[in-house]
Amino acid sequence: VINAGKSQHNEDQACCEVVFVERRPSPGARLPSREAALNSLSHLLPHGLTSPSFLSLQGRKGFYFHYWALFDGHAGSGAAVMASKKLHLHICEQLRDLVDILQDPSPPPICLPHDMRACPTEQSQVPLTEDDGEVPNNAVPRFHLEKAVSHESLVIGAIENAFKLMDDQIERERASQRLPGGCCALAAIYLMGKFYVANAGDSRAIIIRNGEIIPMSREFTPETERQRLQFLAFLRPELLGKEFTHLEFPRRIQPKELGKKMLYRDQNMNGWAYKKIQEDDLKFPLIYGEGKKARVMATIGVTRGLGDHDLKVFSSNIHIKPFLSCFPEVRVYDLTQYEHCPDDVLVLGTDGLWDVTNDKEVAGVVMEVLTSYEPNDPCRYTMVAQELVVRSRGVLKERGWRLANDKLGSGDDISVFVIPL
Amino acid sequence: VINAGKSQHNEDQACCEVVFVERRPSPGARLPSREAALNSLSHLLPHGLTSPSFLSLQGRKGFYFHYWALFDGHAGSGAAVMASKKLHLHICEQLRDLVDILQDPSPPPICLPHDMRACPTEQSQVPLTEDDGEVPNNAVPRFHLEKAVSHESLVIGAIENAFKLMDDQIERERASQRLPGGCCALAAIYLMGKFYVANAGDSRAIIIRNGEIIPMSREFTPETERQRLQFLAFLRPELLGKEFTHLEFPRRIQPKELGKKMLYRDQNMNGWAYKKIQEDDLKFPLIYGEGKKARVMATIGVTRGLGDHDLKVFSSNIHIKPFLSCFPEVRVYDLTQYEHCPDDVLVLGTDGLWDVTNDKEVAGVVMEVLTSYEPNDPCRYTMVAQELVVRSRGVLKERGWRLANDKLGSGDDISVFVIPL
Repeated sequence: VINAGKSQHNEDQACCEVVFVERRPSPGARLPSREAALNSLSHLLPHGLTSPSFLSLQGRKGFYFHYWALFDGHAGSGAAVMASKKLHLHICEQLRDLVDILQDPSPPPICLPHDMRACPTEQSQVPLTEDDGEVPNNAVPRFHLEKAVSHESLVIGAIENAFKLMDDQIERERASQRLPGGCCALAAIYLMGKFYVANAGDSRAIIIRNGEIIPMSREFTPETERQRLQFLAFLRPELLGKEFTHLEFPRRIQPKELGKKMLYRDQNMNGWAYKKIQEDDLKFPLIYGEGKKARVMATIGVTRGLGDHDLKVFSSNIHIKPFLSCFPEVRVYDLTQYEHCPDDVLVLGTDGLWDVTNDKEVAGVVMEVLTSYEPNDPCRYTMVAQELVVRSRGVLKERGWRLANDKLGSGDDISVFVIPL
Repeated sequence: VINAGKSQHNEDQACCEVVFVERRPSPGARLPSREAALNSLSHLLPHGLTSPSFLSLQGRKGFYFHYWALFDGHAGSGAAVMASKKLHLHICEQLRDLVDILQDPSPPPICLPHDMRACPTEQSQVPLTEDDGEVPNNAVPRFHLEKAVSHESLVIGAIENAFKLMDDQIERERASQRLPGGCCALAAIYLMGKFYVANAGDSRAIIIRNGEIIPMSREFTPETERQRLQFLAFLRPELLGKEFTHLEFPRRIQPKELGKKMLYRDQNMNGWAYKKIQEDDLKFPLIYGEGKKARVMATIGVTRGLGDHDLKVFSSNIHIKPFLSCFPEVRVYDLTQYEHCPDDVLVLGTDGLWDVTNDKEVAGVVMEVLTSYEPNDPCRYTMVAQELVVRSRGVLKERGWRLANDKLGSGDDISVFVIPL
């Protein structure tokens, strides 16, 4: 991590842990409170541990996951610091219900008995997925089909809900814990032979395998999520106050242009068309600007992440949060499906990296640095990460920080994980 | 086109035209009414014409586009018949405003003068895209940037709005013209060196180039559009009546299962998680069923298309139309970017084809049939289309219509265009 001086405190935060997911005690026993579980560090293990997926730790049944995450804060570091300390514990909590199910190779049960922990063995005695003779008194036609749900999709659901609960916790504690601002979140979870890469924001993850680049995330910005935001604003115009229009225009319209025809896009369109400018079109567009300068309601340049519960449009009472999503997109990479060599890596980086160094350049640095170390040197991956950060920052010259190509270096915080596959 | 006997009248309809887009008369002259323009066939030319992009037809300024489209009707053929007769005229109408702009290689003007046809030459005298000295009295910060809009995106916008206007016309005339039901629409427009493939529904277009398959559309079904539909239902729960829930469950829940835990997905999730079953979860899920059997509100298996304005949930007053979109996704293929041989084709087919014959099999049939004819035989493409339809229908045996692999043939209407590139 480098703080390039944009803010006094580093707004990028990171976390790297091995987490033990302990099966919940049986239903009869008294459960520890959720708060206590979240604040306990007892299920964290020292780094570098190579563990079998399932084991009994001092008699406790469960499994491990490995976890790396980057949090790129904005308008303060509070949300990023909180998320870096807690997100993996929320993921752990969500997975605790699934310990027995994920260990069982048969398909996950669709329905679990009343007030019972997810446990396929106990559950399999109850034929819940079949009709048991009763014909319910129900006029709606019944479909005798059942959707197959994979173990993988349960892990994805657990991660998605963990992001939501993390966001809820930031909302609850933002006043008492002084957590201003928000953060993008990018997390990689290695569990049972698969990487789950969850992204909410404009950080990015790529895998470099045998020199090939495999994208493991996409960025969520006003441009990439334009249609979702316009659709919401179209259905809930009250969220725009009286200041904004859900239509997109290629530039601001001046009042004297009323009655002329101007290019526009609405939420259903990918192309552009002309419309006659009306009074309502003089409002500021919900989405405005291009590339890195695109903003939601002239305020924020990312559309997913954690926090931002108090964020409002400048000098107004219009809240931004309804347009932001705390849910990540989760992509899965099955390590068992491919052969990997010591030079194959997963790279996580905040936008401070990607703004000045593209995927191909990153792959080039990875290859260049790794080949200069012995394949079994444990430092080699750290050296790649360091080199990526340093190169993206550049060198201080008379005319500011400059990259090798003399372009301006990244003035943003820059954080990188390089994870051997 | 084959009618496999599912309905008495063929619900698949098709259209193939060369359309002349005439520049609108200058603003002073009296415009013909929109209705008259739409019903006029004067701008249609005989097929097979190889035309320069722009020309003057008997002194009229404009350009041609080539057009092929398939309409797969449901609940009657009315909407499909109407759309097959009119959609290209709506596209023509939308393009008429763009005749001058598309001819001019400079970027399209962002803003057009008052009440004036889009005409860059006349327009360029007015520096609309620059500040002209006046500082508007406006508190919102002004951004001195302007988004670049391509000619291509104007054509896309024109096609998108043409679908919307076609849908509006079906709504207006559905009573007087007896237009029950709706239809999927797939249209390929060849204009100035590019194919624009617009799809609304579950038909499909692929390009086969040098044996490689290039998808030119994706299907819009309850499964592929689940999150859009759930998002709408979440924001507008009144659209569900009291019969449906926006949550997805892997199967129907029985009342006696109240209080148990069941797998679910909401609009933010791609994975699955368990939730305690509550009273509200006993309602029928908005999206239900898998693959070809997936339905919106237990009623319809496609989520985009034209018509269906009167479609309601069986024995209820709940309208389906708000969940359907008439807007297509438009994909562009630039013919000038590649070299093509006489065996390279664009294939359009309704689901009657794709349900039983996959992309690879279609590519195989294309190669097999084309190589059995001389490269300059004009019939060879028609023979491919015929072979694709006949093979997908199968042969009548004692146990019904059977494919070569003895599986059941398509019982649906089957329509195919094979267009040489």
